[in-house]
Amino acid sequence: MTEPPVTGIAPLRDAAGAAEQFGARAERLARMAALGLPVPGATVLDFDTVRAIAEGARVPAPDPSLGPVLALRGSAGDRRWGGPQAILNVGLCDAVLPALVERIGRRGALAAYARAIRAYAVRVSGLDPEDFDNIHYDRMKLCDTLSEADLLAIVEESKRFYADEVEMPFPQTLEQQLDGAVRAMVDEWHGLTARILRESSGAPADAGLGLILQRMVFGLGQGRSGAGFFQAVDSTTGRAAATGRFLPDAQGNDAARGARTPHMITEAERAAAGQTLPSLQALDPDAFAALARHAAALTSSLGDVFELPFTVEAGTLHILDATPVRRSPSAAVQIAVDLVGQGAITREIALLRVEPRNLIETLHPRIDPNARRDIFGTGLPASPGAATGKICFSPEAAMALHAQGEDAILVRVETSPEDIRGMHAAVGVLTVRGGMTSHAAVIARGLGLPCVVGAGELHLDLRRGRLTAPDGRAFGAGDSITIDGTAGEALAGAPAMLPAVPSAAFDTLMGWADEVRALGVRANADTPADAALARRFKVDGIGLCRTEHMFFEGDRIDVMREMILASNGAERQVALDRLLPMQRGDFEALFGIMEGLPVTIRLLDPPLHEFLPHGQEELAALARAMNLPVEDVIARAEDLREFNPMLGKRGVRLGITMPEIYDMQARAIFEAAHNAGEAAGVPVIPEIMIPLVSANRELELVKARVDSIAAAVAAERGRRLDYRIGVMVETPRGALRAADLARSSAFLSFGTNDLTQMTYGLSRDDAGRFMRDYVAKGVFPEDPFHSLDVEGVGELLLLATNRGRSVRSDLTLGLCGEHGGDPESIRFCKIAGFDYVSCSPFRVPIARLAAAQVTILTEGGGHGAEPVNHGDDSETS
Amino acid sequence: MTEPPVTGIAPLRDAAGAAEQFGARAERLARMAALGLPVPGATVLDFDTVRAIAEGARVPAPDPSLGPVLALRGSAGDRRWGGPQAILNVGLCDAVLPALVERIGRRGALAAYARAIRAYAVRVSGLDPEDFDNIHYDRMKLCDTLSEADLLAIVEESKRFYADEVEMPFPQTLEQQLDGAVRAMVDEWHGLTARILRESSGAPADAGLGLILQRMVFGLGQGRSGAGFFQAVDSTTGRAAATGRFLPDAQGNDAARGARTPHMITEAERAAAGQTLPSLQALDPDAFAALARHAAALTSSLGDVFELPFTVEAGTLHILDATPVRRSPSAAVQIAVDLVGQGAITREIALLRVEPRNLIETLHPRIDPNARRDIFGTGLPASPGAATGKICFSPEAAMALHAQGEDAILVRVETSPEDIRGMHAAVGVLTVRGGMTSHAAVIARGLGLPCVVGAGELHLDLRRGRLTAPDGRAFGAGDSITIDGTAGEALAGAPAMLPAVPSAAFDTLMGWADEVRALGVRANADTPADAALARRFKVDGIGLCRTEHMFFEGDRIDVMREMILASNGAERQVALDRLLPMQRGDFEALFGIMEGLPVTIRLLDPPLHEFLPHGQEELAALARAMNLPVEDVIARAEDLREFNPMLGKRGVRLGITMPEIYDMQARAIFEAAHNAGEAAGVPVIPEIMIPLVSANRELELVKARVDSIAAAVAAERGRRLDYRIGVMVETPRGALRAADLARSSAFLSFGTNDLTQMTYGLSRDDAGRFMRDYVAKGVFPEDPFHSLDVEGVGELLLLATNRGRSVRSDLTLGLCGEHGGDPESIRFCKIAGFDYVSCSPFRVPIARLAAAQVTILTEGGGHGAEPVNHGDDSETS
Repeated sequence: MTEPPVTGIAPLRDAAGAAEQFGARAERLARMAALGLPVPGATVLDFDTVRAIAEGARVPAPDPSLGPVLALRGSAGDRRWGGPQAILNVGLCDAVLPALVERIGRRGALAAYARAIRAYAVRVSGLDPEDFDNIHYDRMKLCDTLSEADLLAIVEESKRFYADEVEMPFPQTLEQQLDGAVRAMVDEWHGLTARILRESSGAPADAGLGLILQRMVFGLGQGRSGAGFFQAVDSTTGRAAATGRFLPDAQGNDAARGARTPHMITEAERAAAGQTLPSLQALDPDAFAALARHAAALTSSLGDVFELPFTVEAGTLHILDATPVRRSPSAAVQIAVDLVGQGAITREIALLRVEPRNLIETLHPRIDPNARRDIFGTGLPASPGAATGKICFSPEAAMALHAQGEDAILVRVETSPEDIRGMHAAVGVLTVRGGMTSHAAVIARGLGLPCVVGAGELHLDLRRGRLTAPDGRAFGAGDSITIDGTAGEALAGAPAMLPAVPSAAFDTLMGWADEVRALGVRANADTPADAALARRFKVDGIGLCRTEHMFFEGDRIDVMREMILASNGAERQVALDRLLPMQRGDFEALFGIMEGLPVTIRLLDPPLHEFLPHGQEELAALARAMNLPVEDVIARAEDLREFNPMLGKRGVRLGITMPEIYDMQARAIFEAAHNAGEAAGVPVIPEIMIPLVSANRELELVKARVDSIAAAVAAERGRRLDYRIGVMVETPRGALRAADLARSSAFLSFGTNDLTQMTYGLSRDDAGRFMRDYVAKGVFPEDPFHSLDVEGVGELLLLATNRGRSVRSDLTLGLCGEHGGDPESIRFCKIAGFDYVSCSPFRVPIARLAAAQVTILTEGGGHGAEPVNHGDDSETS
Repeated sequence: MTEPPVTGIAPLRDAAGAAEQFGARAERLARMAALGLPVPGATVLDFDTVRAIAEGARVPAPDPSLGPVLALRGSAGDRRWGGPQAILNVGLCDAVLPALVERIGRRGALAAYARAIRAYAVRVSGLDPEDFDNIHYDRMKLCDTLSEADLLAIVEESKRFYADEVEMPFPQTLEQQLDGAVRAMVDEWHGLTARILRESSGAPADAGLGLILQRMVFGLGQGRSGAGFFQAVDSTTGRAAATGRFLPDAQGNDAARGARTPHMITEAERAAAGQTLPSLQALDPDAFAALARHAAALTSSLGDVFELPFTVEAGTLHILDATPVRRSPSAAVQIAVDLVGQGAITREIALLRVEPRNLIETLHPRIDPNARRDIFGTGLPASPGAATGKICFSPEAAMALHAQGEDAILVRVETSPEDIRGMHAAVGVLTVRGGMTSHAAVIARGLGLPCVVGAGELHLDLRRGRLTAPDGRAFGAGDSITIDGTAGEALAGAPAMLPAVPSAAFDTLMGWADEVRALGVRANADTPADAALARRFKVDGIGLCRTEHMFFEGDRIDVMREMILASNGAERQVALDRLLPMQRGDFEALFGIMEGLPVTIRLLDPPLHEFLPHGQEELAALARAMNLPVEDVIARAEDLREFNPMLGKRGVRLGITMPEIYDMQARAIFEAAHNAGEAAGVPVIPEIMIPLVSANRELELVKARVDSIAAAVAAERGRRLDYRIGVMVETPRGALRAADLARSSAFLSFGTNDLTQMTYGLSRDDAGRFMRDYVAKGVFPEDPFHSLDVEGVGELLLLATNRGRSVRSDLTLGLCGEHGGDPESIRFCKIAGFDYVSCSPFRVPIARLAAAQVTILTEGGGHGAEPVNHGDDSETS
């Protein structure tokens, strides 16, 4: 199709399909030209030529047919890698001026000449733009009020100033100016700052730059002239709605700069904004119609919606570039689905176009618009969504509240890495200091946690535990407040909430994701409320039900404490007998909500001392309830203290040393499964997961007891029940011995939080102190608790997967750490051959989409298209 | 040589060289007979025949040439697997009695008949031995005072009692009695108890039993008759010294049972014991000389020293068996070396004959015999050696004292698994309760820790922290006491000690071990005293110098605390500048003592808060010293508190976040190496080890700084210095990434204590609570902190070894956890291709011997001999 690549200067059409030689912008412009869009003529320098110039080669002479004045634009191999700003009006000089006056009038030509001198002086000769501002920029802003004599004076003054500063006259040939402008852009491309920036966007160290030498079209001067930008969809909603700006007598991106008020593009926009200036639609219906037509043509041809920068020269429309429309997360979904509807892209491409992480913003509940908003403070809307909870002034308090099944709002002056566990435990974050890129804001967005930062009018007195509003109201720890991270507001109390209502487009896209994906997505859900939320997000099941969370609720904690502190088996059994119906009720509710979908129940895991009261008063109350001297209660509690609770008597170790606890849980599960199965008329097949296994015998011992309880319950009910027993692999040894474990397991589920802690020998609670330092110094490329450590933990997962499957080919493999909601980690899980990931309910849609994407990319989908295609910061001139 | 094996009854000579068919005893008896020893004639039933009998086959008829009365002895495949006691006098019945009277006289014959009935009744017919005691045993004990009529009455009464109880007359043919006796022994062999016992000694589930049908010789009756045992060496010292016992008018092991006082064997023994009964040497010089001659012949032929059970019938000596002499650990060494001197065994066999773990008893210091012994309590000598230290009443106190470089004596009522860390930290253990197999005794012997248990006359009041002696003296925490685990004594104060003086034989054996072994043995030594001790035990170098122990000494702790609590870099540097000369001095001393042997110095590892004072008073003192408000000191100390110190800011994490500390240590090491090298005239090549590495970049960052400090010191000194930088692999991730680490490391040393903790997700401090339960239930086959977990941790070691060597074939590999002194683990290290193990100084000889043994066994030594050959509990009859 294209001519063989040549080194040197090439016609624009050669760039079609050759982005890796000429850069993405040149490639796109060539395609636009081929589609018949009114793109000004251009020639292009390819990467090798530009490299040669960087090493001292001569800048080739431009094609004379482009005319004496050129626009010079950079063209990087990938749009996301940026590139130098365009330099316009290159070649404008005394000798050219008369012809330009002829073409666009004296006023326009002089204005362009003044701009040309300033741009060259600043970009090529390195002069300070403020000096030019001092000469004339104040007048330039009001250019249409300047006389021709003023403009001429500005040109002359600028030339003089240039000659004084540079000690050379302003260059007076196209060749000289082009040489300078090309070298300036090439130097900028090779500069340290540009290199670091583009390498952080994934560019290779030797990324090349193409250069486009384009015929200059002028938005200045006589007739209808000006510059603007146009797009056919709304960036916020993604719905079809023409939008943009047009500024008469302007060049490049003047219309976006805001020095003068631009015209809206449509009458509807103008009316909505209450503007009096007529819209482009009214001013120039032909140009407007042409823009809409061209945008539609580009969309059907290139499969995306674009923003079109354009220039009108004496009534003639020129389109200078096309960049994908910037879009909000929900707009991205809408656009992708609409493009499929228009036949512009396939469903697979649509799925690849949406960044899974961004979905979270669309999923949070919001405050009912009809509710009374008792706002006591405002700040920055750092992470969207609304949440109600009790005030906690420390991460420990938030963790404690969370452990008791309550919602915490973490309130801090600002957050630091030490607060991360507290943020994980909270439903929302409010800080007094900090901006949109503060620690709290960044982390909260990452966690999908509603967050308001920089609420500076609030006074936080940590010592007294008091948050005081400007109106004098004070809030203490435990007081209920609500934050609205979309509006940036802190509200007293708990206003009515509306659940997030996913758009029809969202449901459509998610439906496609479910059709495509070959990786299950389950939820970590401990309560019926969690399970109901997860089902709203269309999970495939519950991958992790942490039964310990069930023990903190209501009056159960008291019974639990009596069980733990029992001095003999009989006493303990009394407490367990009281816990049994509570647990059975929990499980019945879960099974009922899940309607036959798999439910994986993890037997009790945490260190027992977590259940114990810590304050003197609470201990005394417990002593009274247990009819024991308080010294005894304190002594027994002290006995349960551990040096390293994370490496202590947890999980299956508890189950083996106090087997009555797991016995009770197993019975509750089986009885609930019987009951729920009978109620629904379809059998429930519970999955029982044994935590923290490091030796096969641990599994065997617990399995034997669970099996015998299953048999006992079956005998009592006169009916057998299917169930599956599996292991939560959380220790390196568990992973290494996966073949042993697989022999007696129906499934292995990897708890990557703990596995990461043990593989690194690093507790998440303690890592906060230095993790920022470590990531900043590149010691760890990323926080391994956020993004799965593929090289270390990942190897253990692969090894365990292979070993497990080697002895049992139908072994079910899952992942149920926080990594289960992380797209990169999900990608790893799919490639490693996992059957499912399990994550928090709010991250389920993220996981479903990420699972679809990795399925498409690894199983022959993808169609070679650029997957994610948002707007970015590259220049549009 | 031997005839083809036949199933059925075979002559004794067929058993020579066929222990796997006839059992070890039969094999040995055959060899003794072949050597010309006076072994009574016998035939043997092989394993298959005995198995057939167990399944109901007929017992074959004995060879009539053996005579009418037989001794029936079991013969297991391996002596350690035990077997049923012999049954003597089989076939004695009314019909045989006259001939026996003819042979050994009426008194002897009747006594033998009475014994025959009793043995058959008890062993075959399952009657209660006490019933026979009631009939006649009181009289039997005084047999030589009984009249023939009494004896006849006993025989008749016994027959009547038998017939009444069994409801069958006492069997009156050899065939009947033999059938019963054989079946009884076969049933016993297949019984559950015997099976469990022998399988715990390593017997296979289908282990066979041979049976020896031996002509009965009688130590009862007329002429010089009796039974005894003889050995040519002293069991305590191992030196040549005939010893044994002889009891006239006796059978089987009567001489050892102590019912009557036996005769000594030699006149020297008799004189030493102050006995008046003449020795066998005096009584029967011919028999004595024959025993000595036969023992010597056996030793040169079989390569070990044996205890010979013998019977004298009417002046004629018969030797019934030969079992290897029981021996103390130091006797084992002496015997092995002497056997080599006699040409009876090779050096390799000698090395395999000594159990490395037993060496520790020979290595502890002892109290100077001339010192005054101020004994305040006595108990059982549970684990030999003497030690002085300060009283600690809790494991935590012992650990704290140890951390400060002081010696602790752990004093407890009794110990439990929770105390293990405290025992590790202590130099000796004293308990009020418990016997020789109590927890404290077993663990202390395993650790080679002097220990006295069951000092019941002491009163321990833990609440008041008081240990009160029977004489009223009271000792408190911190008081200095000494325990003598060899004598079982607790002494006040610190009597003068004599270092252990290894015997010449010990030195000889160790010299052979060093010639043979292909695995280095280094010591974990933190102080010059440790290093000097290690050199006494002939180490190959220091494998682990834990620099943190250097900071606890003397006034350094104060400087260290100021360094830790410094609020800025300048303050911290002031403290580090004061620590530098102290560290340099330590290292100079170490290098000086080690005289060019490798010294591996681990950079600072423990969590900083370990250095901080905990009590209110100490905190206040520190605040005054630092001129800071005490609240600030408390707050800074609180900041250093960690949830899981084991998984916190330790090791290289500290080195990266506070690089000044490692900088100071590196400088101290290099300056000391320069100084020590100049002083000695030979260069010192220090090895610097970076702890707790989990990511390659950690190594790179520290290495870069250490290298630059080496360069700086080299520039200052005007001379370059060789040094080696390596990694302590303690995290699973470090093991997995060994190839990366090996690229920048000269060595990897595996810290298997931490690696075990992290692989299992189990802290040693917290495991104590349930480890006993776990091992008892077989969840873990052994405590993985004592014996290396080959399946889990071992796999990580192998994997790291292979990966490390794959990128650097000359990579040095070592192990420096407590497993480094454990023979099983040392065996693993050799097979895994390690270059060295490093262990505590006292375990160095154990490691040297274990290393020699595994070298012999894996590199073609061993010569097929039975390696360890002590006395055991199998019967000798």
